[in-house]
Amino acid sequence: MRVARAVQNLVEAFERLPGIGPKTAQRLTYYLLHVPQTELDRFADALTSLKKNTRECATCHNIGETDLCDICSDRNRDSGLICVVEQPLDVLALEAGNGYKGRYHVLHGVIDPLHNIGPDEIKLGELISRIKDLGSKISEVILALNPTMEGEATCLFIKQQISNLKSQDSKLRVTRLAHGLPVGADIQYADDQTLSHALQGRREY
Amino acid sequence: MRVARAVQNLVEAFERLPGIGPKTAQRLTYYLLHVPQTELDRFADALTSLKKNTRECATCHNIGETDLCDICSDRNRDSGLICVVEQPLDVLALEAGNGYKGRYHVLHGVIDPLHNIGPDEIKLGELISRIKDLGSKISEVILALNPTMEGEATCLFIKQQISNLKSQDSKLRVTRLAHGLPVGADIQYADDQTLSHALQGRREY
Repeated sequence: MRVARAVQNLVEAFERLPGIGPKTAQRLTYYLLHVPQTELDRFADALTSLKKNTRECATCHNIGETDLCDICSDRNRDSGLICVVEQPLDVLALEAGNGYKGRYHVLHGVIDPLHNIGPDEIKLGELISRIKDLGSKISEVILALNPTMEGEATCLFIKQQISNLKSQDSKLRVTRLAHGLPVGADIQYADDQTLSHALQGRREY
Repeated sequence: MRVARAVQNLVEAFERLPGIGPKTAQRLTYYLLHVPQTELDRFADALTSLKKNTRECATCHNIGETDLCDICSDRNRDSGLICVVEQPLDVLALEAGNGYKGRYHVLHGVIDPLHNIGPDEIKLGELISRIKDLGSKISEVILALNPTMEGEATCLFIKQQISNLKSQDSKLRVTRLAHGLPVGADIQYADDQTLSHALQGRREY
């Protein structure tokens, strides 16, 4: 049986999305057949205007609506504190906690030689020149990259680049997010790496 | 932090889809920010034209491109055999097997009193009048509804309606798909209902 071209087109569009397989793509498409045309049009409009109505912040490279994002233009935030993350979604996650009052820097990826992604393919040069420009006004760089092989390698690379930059008397600190047991987790289900990090990083109670 | 309006719009559109939660919707949206505008436009176009370029077949109510779908207009298929299914996706699944050479009837749902879906809300009247119109030319109605409570109730209802229709000498058979162990399944993991069906339906070897 030949599936209608319009149905097949939408199935293929959904299939191109990450984490959506052929069965889910079919299910979503046939679901949308029962939805009013106005809703389909609104969905389509949201798709076409996604990139047109968003800007990448010139300073931190997060996704916003203006050339300088809300966080970078917020004078109440400490501009001497830069939290380096992989993706804009990481900013959302960190902001949800409401505990951080510094600025961000979104790399849009990590160094990943297996996929031909080197330091020049991500916003790493921009981070280094941002730190250089801030000079003595910057006090701390927090590396909030994912604890994967690539994340670790990128952290090391950034640390090295900052060391090359630092003058002898600089007080710039480079820190990483703490590793340990997630809140609510069970010790018996924690993996050995997490437990060993949790032990090493134990704190006075 | 305020998320860009365009991003939020697309996240909300994805969230309205079944089985897609807030986290997945965010992930898909931020993924699409890295995709070329032409691909976004193609996706949007597929959405708007989904319903415009598809038709519901006048006979079997499957989704196709013309008023009479490919299967209903195929003269090589046995028009005396009607397989009743819940959704167009079920037709796709049955056609994938390539073993069925009759026609279909898509109900677009099942009788579900808890959700206010009665016989009039699905294509049940259309099925009965289709069977009536075919008269003695129809030999078998195969009920291929899902083995849920609602599916079972709908099967019973259809069987009753057909009995009312049948004249004394009619040879019209009403059958159901076999229940039993799925191919490749392990007996020790099968539930008791499936096993009891498999035993009842055992065949000469």
